[in-house]
Amino acid sequence: MVKTGGLPARQEGLRQHNLALVAQCIAAGEPVSRAGIAAATGLTKTTVSSLVDDLAGAGLVTELGPEASGKIGRPASALTLNRSVFVGVGLEINVDYLAVCVANLVGEVRLLRTRPRDNRDQSPAKVLGRAVRMTNNAIAAAQAAGRTVAGLAVAVPGPVETDRGLLRLAPNLGWVEVPVAEILAGRLVAPDLPVLVDNEANLAALGELWFGGHDDLDDFVHVSGEIGVGAGIVIGGELFRGVRGFAGEVGHVTVQPDGPRCRCGARGCLEQLAGQEAILRAAGVAGAAGTSLGQPGGSVAELLARARAGDAATVAAVASAGRALGLALSATVNVVDPGTVVLGGLYASLEPWLREPLGAELSERAITQRWSPARVLASRLGPNAAVRGATGAVVKRVLADPSAVFAVAGHRVAPTRPRTG
Amino acid sequence: MVKTGGLPARQEGLRQHNLALVAQCIAAGEPVSRAGIAAATGLTKTTVSSLVDDLAGAGLVTELGPEASGKIGRPASALTLNRSVFVGVGLEINVDYLAVCVANLVGEVRLLRTRPRDNRDQSPAKVLGRAVRMTNNAIAAAQAAGRTVAGLAVAVPGPVETDRGLLRLAPNLGWVEVPVAEILAGRLVAPDLPVLVDNEANLAALGELWFGGHDDLDDFVHVSGEIGVGAGIVIGGELFRGVRGFAGEVGHVTVQPDGPRCRCGARGCLEQLAGQEAILRAAGVAGAAGTSLGQPGGSVAELLARARAGDAATVAAVASAGRALGLALSATVNVVDPGTVVLGGLYASLEPWLREPLGAELSERAITQRWSPARVLASRLGPNAAVRGATGAVVKRVLADPSAVFAVAGHRVAPTRPRTG
Repeated sequence: MVKTGGLPARQEGLRQHNLALVAQCIAAGEPVSRAGIAAATGLTKTTVSSLVDDLAGAGLVTELGPEASGKIGRPASALTLNRSVFVGVGLEINVDYLAVCVANLVGEVRLLRTRPRDNRDQSPAKVLGRAVRMTNNAIAAAQAAGRTVAGLAVAVPGPVETDRGLLRLAPNLGWVEVPVAEILAGRLVAPDLPVLVDNEANLAALGELWFGGHDDLDDFVHVSGEIGVGAGIVIGGELFRGVRGFAGEVGHVTVQPDGPRCRCGARGCLEQLAGQEAILRAAGVAGAAGTSLGQPGGSVAELLARARAGDAATVAAVASAGRALGLALSATVNVVDPGTVVLGGLYASLEPWLREPLGAELSERAITQRWSPARVLASRLGPNAAVRGATGAVVKRVLADPSAVFAVAGHRVAPTRPRTG
Repeated sequence: MVKTGGLPARQEGLRQHNLALVAQCIAAGEPVSRAGIAAATGLTKTTVSSLVDDLAGAGLVTELGPEASGKIGRPASALTLNRSVFVGVGLEINVDYLAVCVANLVGEVRLLRTRPRDNRDQSPAKVLGRAVRMTNNAIAAAQAAGRTVAGLAVAVPGPVETDRGLLRLAPNLGWVEVPVAEILAGRLVAPDLPVLVDNEANLAALGELWFGGHDDLDDFVHVSGEIGVGAGIVIGGELFRGVRGFAGEVGHVTVQPDGPRCRCGARGCLEQLAGQEAILRAAGVAGAAGTSLGQPGGSVAELLARARAGDAATVAAVASAGRALGLALSATVNVVDPGTVVLGGLYASLEPWLREPLGAELSERAITQRWSPARVLASRLGPNAAVRGATGAVVKRVLADPSAVFAVAGHRVAPTRPRTG
């Protein structure tokens, strides 16, 4: 019984819509029964069963097996997302490292590799070439393990026009107008793989939303502290992108009008006073590539060790960054009223030393602190948030249009198959 | 034929929904025919006719009369909002003036009165007492002219919990936690009048959106320059309120970290460096109550006259304010990416002298200015935007639930009447 092949366009569209509805219902509430899906979506049980069969046939959904319910009739079988077939690949191109991550439909990490590397003033061709090799290796490893790669999402350190995959500007890399999606797409081992490009601070915020393990945290600003500083704003469980897609550039909020010159051209931007390099410099720790990752022997590991030991210069350096961060976040809280601030990237590890000076600035400068203070939390994912968020962005796309991967899955599982029930 | 009286709850809810749909369709596209409404809403022509009859019977909608269409059948009659029955009343309680406005369903102003008055450090009881008298006079005048008052919306100079009508804080008035809606509601000549309270910067932004005469301007931040400075953020034609409803507090963005102490308790807030008093002081013009209104003989009129005459101190004072404003707006553009900035309140009149210094700061500090510069426009409504927006907020509520005013209209027009068609 072929279900989709011969349908007219309108019914085909409806079926795609319903497939997404069912897939998202399973993702939101797993494990869930067919009857539960029918109740939640308003679709008939027959329709739900047919859609679930398609999703299961394509490897998106799996059954945990019948549960003894004590009721008469076919026992309810709990459905979950299939953890063993589809994976999303996330790639992060950052200022001092590259990272790649492979995760399944529920965000379980199958592979996470990071390569410290100073990408500053390197050409896009060179850096993207390395990134392609890492990505292709990850795709090949996933395929060798029997996974089907559903897509690639790329986190980059600057504002992006997402519809074109165009990185507009990456001040810390010295890049202007780099068509990242186009460059990567032509060089992947899987040439038809959908490629999505987004700002790393946006993907980090989404990573924290989806995989950070915070209960009921649907509204927050997530500020990523690395060499560059950026933020992702999540309102009602969705990324707030602003009107042209460039919201969240907290790293370039002025905190010292006549302060040091930023790579963006302005003076006194937050990232010049509270970015990773400013903190390392003020603490007297030599900077090195890849230190965002806190790798053993790296500068950030040294910084953290000194902070834990109570080294006065380090604690003072972090406190100074905390005041600058508090000032820029006060502006953010005053303008956006996000309710909660999540400290991400390097700031997650430094949170114990940032909290007090940052909180003091917020208390003085954010007007709502008087009666409705914004909460300040540390990210659970730290520097991995963006690359994990990237894998999640791939999964979100799959769940929003499951039929798009039926063809991808075609070589291993028939997208449509006879009903067995 | 009684249409709503005997309907079960669910059908009654559906009819209310459809009444709103039809009313909003007429408001959006007037003049429009019944057939046009049916096409736009998907309702049957019979249902549309019945709903239009109800709206017309209540005085919300009126017919322009049949149009010769050259087609066979009953000629199409163009429908518009009724301009002569319902009015909304707006009240603005500001730091140096009170204002009241009466406008009809399409925003035509029937009455606009402003009273310069220094409200600083006056008790809420005293100021709200004056405001009630102005409002009651306006309601009485409207009723004497045969209008039906549909509601009151109040603009106040501080963050508001709109669901309770609670003004949380008004730093320039020295007020904390004032239950404005509750205090006013008990003292109006129309005791059952719905009372809505909102931040004046929010209502000013909505006033500009609805009545500013800008074509296709659905995304912008409107910054109101008065003694206090605030902003309203409009995204996709809707006010962006943030998570707790307190977004847009641009006046308390820090522009000079160790700058002068603000009435909010912080140092170097925008309104201390670019608010009306700071500009008057720097220009050497004596401050006086009610100057926001630019009244003849007032300080703002004097300031504008000096600026037009090219007085160096005045031009320098406005330029300094423009730089401070540009810095705070750069933070806003970086974080929110609103696409357009509208200069409101006093800033609308000062725009010719603000534009260059403000633009220079935006160019340096707002990262998107490199490839996608935010537009800067002057408000068309200036200091009247908030009180006009307040009247619009009343009208929006009426169109969102027309049946709510059927009872109000009951004394003059039967809410339901026999079909004549």
